[in-house]
Amino acid sequence: MLIFTKSLFTLKKENPNKENLPDNFSPAVLKKIQQARKNQPNTEELITNILSGDIGALSRAITLIESNNPNHFTEANAIIKACLPHANNSVRIGITGVPGVGKSTFIEAFGKHLTKLGKKIAVLTIDPSSSLSHGSILGDKTRMEELAKDPNAYVRPSASGDTVGGVARKTRETITLCEACGFDTVIIETVGVGQNEIAVHSMVDFFLLLNVTGTGDELQGIKKGIMEMADAIVINKADGDNIQKAVLAKAEMNNALHLFPAKKSGWIPVTLTCSSKTLEGINEVWETISNYIERTQNNTFFESKRAEQNEFWLMETIENQLKQDFFNNSEVQILLEKTKKAVQNNEYSPFAAAQLLVEKYFNTKT
Amino acid sequence: MLIFTKSLFTLKKENPNKENLPDNFSPAVLKKIQQARKNQPNTEELITNILSGDIGALSRAITLIESNNPNHFTEANAIIKACLPHANNSVRIGITGVPGVGKSTFIEAFGKHLTKLGKKIAVLTIDPSSSLSHGSILGDKTRMEELAKDPNAYVRPSASGDTVGGVARKTRETITLCEACGFDTVIIETVGVGQNEIAVHSMVDFFLLLNVTGTGDELQGIKKGIMEMADAIVINKADGDNIQKAVLAKAEMNNALHLFPAKKSGWIPVTLTCSSKTLEGINEVWETISNYIERTQNNTFFESKRAEQNEFWLMETIENQLKQDFFNNSEVQILLEKTKKAVQNNEYSPFAAAQLLVEKYFNTKT
Repeated sequence: MLIFTKSLFTLKKENPNKENLPDNFSPAVLKKIQQARKNQPNTEELITNILSGDIGALSRAITLIESNNPNHFTEANAIIKACLPHANNSVRIGITGVPGVGKSTFIEAFGKHLTKLGKKIAVLTIDPSSSLSHGSILGDKTRMEELAKDPNAYVRPSASGDTVGGVARKTRETITLCEACGFDTVIIETVGVGQNEIAVHSMVDFFLLLNVTGTGDELQGIKKGIMEMADAIVINKADGDNIQKAVLAKAEMNNALHLFPAKKSGWIPVTLTCSSKTLEGINEVWETISNYIERTQNNTFFESKRAEQNEFWLMETIENQLKQDFFNNSEVQILLEKTKKAVQNNEYSPFAAAQLLVEKYFNTKT
Repeated sequence: MLIFTKSLFTLKKENPNKENLPDNFSPAVLKKIQQARKNQPNTEELITNILSGDIGALSRAITLIESNNPNHFTEANAIIKACLPHANNSVRIGITGVPGVGKSTFIEAFGKHLTKLGKKIAVLTIDPSSSLSHGSILGDKTRMEELAKDPNAYVRPSASGDTVGGVARKTRETITLCEACGFDTVIIETVGVGQNEIAVHSMVDFFLLLNVTGTGDELQGIKKGIMEMADAIVINKADGDNIQKAVLAKAEMNNALHLFPAKKSGWIPVTLTCSSKTLEGINEVWETISNYIERTQNNTFFESKRAEQNEFWLMETIENQLKQDFFNNSEVQILLEKTKKAVQNNEYSPFAAAQLLVEKYFNTKT
């Protein structure tokens, strides 16, 4: 044993650049492995390629960030850390709306308008359905086909996940990568039905709610909380026979918006109409956003909101990780169900029970 | 030194029931101390007295629960645990309203009405001003003087505290003690301006918002969230020239209530008018609450809401204790400020930074 250890040590010393392999290892196999490793870019190469605008490297890095394999965590963190000084320089737009309002066609029309203006657009889509079907209902390839072909656009279905926290982290870090890769406008699309909107609202500069004409019934499909977050409501499909109804819906939405308290940004939410078919009003949407960005950059709200968002995610992640560690603790899991029952049946004060559980949890740590 | 230790040990062994005192300790002083200890009821006596309806014992136990002295925690927990099987049998009513709506005079009129009906009323008041002035603005003694004199009523200004969590625990456990002491109706009064209302809403069966006549301006003084929690809105001071305005305000409030989503209880919030001076409408308030209790007890909402509330406080307290331990950790405190700055300045991903902080925190535990 001692001899073997010694011989390995000697081998290492004598051939510091060579792998410690048994003698009967074929040199052909070794060469093959080395070649495969060479083809796979290392972390530094990946970073350099992202910073030079290489879409392939960007996609590869996003995959690493989305990976739940712990072996990828260190590399993903290193890439993010290296990209951060080159990020933070895009306009981040959140776009939401219930199914059927035409989000994909709107983003395609809007995105193409922006690339014509010389902008580089990244579109990240968060689709809750994809976590069930492992793919969007319509299939990722058939959505925004035109925009995806545009050399100045990058369309990527964002990670789905079991937790809002997980989706948030992956999406937020993907924004950083896209910015470092040279995209000056990042659009995050969500389906306006769940928790994801709140998370996305906390990572974008401008939050846009897409809607269609309709009666009060349809208006109720949008959660009040989502409407309250909107910096603009855009009534889509304002074309043909629909134009008049769209103008009415715009007025109705405008009234509804006035019921919400004033925004810290000083911005008064805007209602617009547009058609993704005739492209009428698409430019006005961009002008509204530009106007917002200019104003909030002038009154320093833009920068302070981003700093606040970063702190929000720091604190949010700390809380989530503390809770996760607690609720994943095997002793806690055994005790928690019993404790819940005892507390529900008034056998134990919930406060005293909580204190006891937390004490037992900390005892498992020492 | 060794001899002294040995002699003390010998003393203990020889006189197991006597205190270990120096020889020159006066027997008269010893007797005095023992007498004072005897007069102070021990935990078992305190519990027995609470369960037999002794107000003095109740007050003493509440003081123990409110104490921030760690030496009192074990005793307080033991009392609560012993009282729990005898608690849970009152109607718990939360009453809130902005300053000036006449909460104290209303509760006095309402409470006296209830004691006349043969009920035993406990009134706990949570006044945020008392944590600043160490006493209510009006002084605790001058408020609800009449009700406090009633042998079937118990008025107690509840604990103030630095944290909502702390106030919640003390108030919630005081309810348990009052119930064990035989009070069948517990009223918790808060000033409708802050976070305490949400906490109180999570420990009562019925939540009543007290208001006065007024224009839209005054209506805006009430936070929408508080109005949304209300099971009834009572327009107070509906007397003299004010009656007509009160009727109008009632209609206005009723309209506002309809904008909120339906309640899980199936209960449709009620608007009432009353006068704490003429006592007009006071009985209707009680009838409304009785009606609510009867209905929700019949549809099992009453019991399931209480079980839910208990679970809510269990989970809430766990989260608070986990966060408290983290943020009070001296290593975390040193690192957190630096980390916040780094994250705000985009030097570090908030997610990676949070992970690192939590890891370092757990390392301090082992």
